[in-house]
Amino acid sequence: MRKVYLDANATTPVHPEVTEAMIPFCRGIFGNASSVHSFGREARKNLEAARKKVAALINAASPDEIVFTSGGTESDNFAIKGVASALKEKGSHIITSSVEHLAVLNTCKYLEKMGCKVTYLGVDKYGVIDLEELKKSVTDKTILITIMAANNETGTIMPVEKIAQIAKDKGVTFHTDAVQMIGKMPFDVKKMGADLVSMSAHKINGPKGTGALYIKKGTRIDKFIHGGHHEKNRRAGTENVSGIVGFGKACEIMQKEGAEKYDKVKELRDELHRRIEKNIKQVMLNGHPENRLPNTLNISFKYLEGESILLSLDLEGIAASTGSACTSGSLEPSHVLKAMGVEPMFAQGSVRFSLGVFNTKEDIAYVAEKLPPIIERLRKMSPVYKPEENDR
Amino acid sequence: MRKVYLDANATTPVHPEVTEAMIPFCRGIFGNASSVHSFGREARKNLEAARKKVAALINAASPDEIVFTSGGTESDNFAIKGVASALKEKGSHIITSSVEHLAVLNTCKYLEKMGCKVTYLGVDKYGVIDLEELKKSVTDKTILITIMAANNETGTIMPVEKIAQIAKDKGVTFHTDAVQMIGKMPFDVKKMGADLVSMSAHKINGPKGTGALYIKKGTRIDKFIHGGHHEKNRRAGTENVSGIVGFGKACEIMQKEGAEKYDKVKELRDELHRRIEKNIKQVMLNGHPENRLPNTLNISFKYLEGESILLSLDLEGIAASTGSACTSGSLEPSHVLKAMGVEPMFAQGSVRFSLGVFNTKEDIAYVAEKLPPIIERLRKMSPVYKPEENDR
Repeated sequence: MRKVYLDANATTPVHPEVTEAMIPFCRGIFGNASSVHSFGREARKNLEAARKKVAALINAASPDEIVFTSGGTESDNFAIKGVASALKEKGSHIITSSVEHLAVLNTCKYLEKMGCKVTYLGVDKYGVIDLEELKKSVTDKTILITIMAANNETGTIMPVEKIAQIAKDKGVTFHTDAVQMIGKMPFDVKKMGADLVSMSAHKINGPKGTGALYIKKGTRIDKFIHGGHHEKNRRAGTENVSGIVGFGKACEIMQKEGAEKYDKVKELRDELHRRIEKNIKQVMLNGHPENRLPNTLNISFKYLEGESILLSLDLEGIAASTGSACTSGSLEPSHVLKAMGVEPMFAQGSVRFSLGVFNTKEDIAYVAEKLPPIIERLRKMSPVYKPEENDR
Repeated sequence: MRKVYLDANATTPVHPEVTEAMIPFCRGIFGNASSVHSFGREARKNLEAARKKVAALINAASPDEIVFTSGGTESDNFAIKGVASALKEKGSHIITSSVEHLAVLNTCKYLEKMGCKVTYLGVDKYGVIDLEELKKSVTDKTILITIMAANNETGTIMPVEKIAQIAKDKGVTFHTDAVQMIGKMPFDVKKMGADLVSMSAHKINGPKGTGALYIKKGTRIDKFIHGGHHEKNRRAGTENVSGIVGFGKACEIMQKEGAEKYDKVKELRDELHRRIEKNIKQVMLNGHPENRLPNTLNISFKYLEGESILLSLDLEGIAASTGSACTSGSLEPSHVLKAMGVEPMFAQGSVRFSLGVFNTKEDIAYVAEKLPPIIERLRKMSPVYKPEENDR
């Protein structure tokens, strides 16, 4: 059976060049990057080379602004808890949005229990926050604004440059979870002006278990993981050299070929969208029609349960998801679609197709062919299904 | 030039079988273990198989007691901060020792800043705490005892079973950082009775960036990394499947062959010790003469700086360290030797040789041959050196 993977926002296949770059570090080059002997220096040299590649992808002013972590979730925890701890004398008010990834939302909820005050900004029907509301929410006790760069479920892009400007004007630290955007779109941290940016390797054909937090020089932040003096005394724990080398390679590839690759991904994504719109009635796009990630297509099939669609797709070898992999298994409707005001009959039937650089025209043709009969069959079984007047 | 690696307490070469086990997960099997489709299920299946292997190595009652982390340092942070957060209604007193790894010490210091009270137990000349002092230190506000299983610098083993019994009698949670012991010696968590145990893959020929926290069923602990519902809602972040599979394989190998391998390692270590004692004057063993890890030999060369010895060894292709790699670069004398009361003239000249399963007789012969002339040359250059009466 053909296997088609359209769940790149959950994770991506490791690029063969990334794997090849990593393997020597799972074999001969095994030193601890903190050791002073030749084994350690060899590891350190490659670690620092990777740091430069990661810094280059986002145009950081210096590689020193990149701190390696175990992934996007740790980076979000580090950023938010680190600022809350460092600035607790100033205040304890945090502003975020209601459509963030759980790594941000649940960290904020934890800090609420610890006594912080958190404002969760609402979003419009496309999933975008209101900048005026943001401005009004800032108080003299506000220590952090944390708003994602692009949404993992819908791909909707937030106006991060404008948010950064507001934060700057108000003298508030700005963190953005850019895990879904970096690598898929141009991301210039210097131009954007964020103070803290979360990154992840495995969303851009790098390995799992590796990420980074960009920390703009001068940003006040406490450590999150305490211990040894690794990462210039900012993140303790023996560095995952093979993972970091793979992350560096993935960034290098994306910097070189990302724009071109994602142009192609966008074409494929739009082709899938056209064919779904053409062949299936009562569907709705979730997220911004234009201003969203080039790879993400979140579609609601009215009257259906997203999970049933996924199961049927899975039997045809097609991998997609209802939303974040991090919430899968939960039967709660997506908090993102809920915040966007998507009505339940649509929200329950949402499916996220997220494409990657390895998808082909044939993949899309296969999914476009398999999907309509699945939807038709499931709707026939649905007790609530009402054909539109023009349905046949 | 021959290369001899005697710094296994810093990190170890990845076992070739571990590398081979990991590679498929850096290639074809790339799913997110939280995804419900076939790609995700394949990852999940392998993740759970690895969990069983890790649980088996320490004889955990159930694989569910194993939570994967990014390494030993994260596990220590998770254990200590997680208990401090979960039990804050009961109290905020923590008992630890003065010879812990920085991952424990600096986490405790951070919690002190946050309002916790921490007792740092002293140690005897071998680096062992006093059990009576421990008993006396427990108050009704004590929430955690965290004492390492074996010291990373000297290899000295702590009486963890007795500590666990004291903790149990007093109704206090007991955490042990067993990063240096597990895999090198039999470790039966059920028999020992610890509530929380930190483990690391890269110290036992597994990959860097992977570790685990054993959490005995029923132990009250809050999350450390917040976000998605991974690891049964105990540790958020997409699982590092390839790393975890490698960790599982490393545990499997150690369970099968560890005892035999470390018998051989101990022989080699003792051979090196004998030859140093025979050929070099004014040396001193740091740590317990018998009751220590089979691979660790921490020796002080009086009148010298450990760093100079390391540099000379490095020029001969020999890798050793002065203490923890996590503190390297710092010129402070070792806090472990200081706590043991080692006099400065010896403490400064300490070198840790830590052997691994890949070391050979030839390695030891090479080091035993290269070391005496290095020490002699350095001592001749030392302004403080005083030959003993029986020195030549």
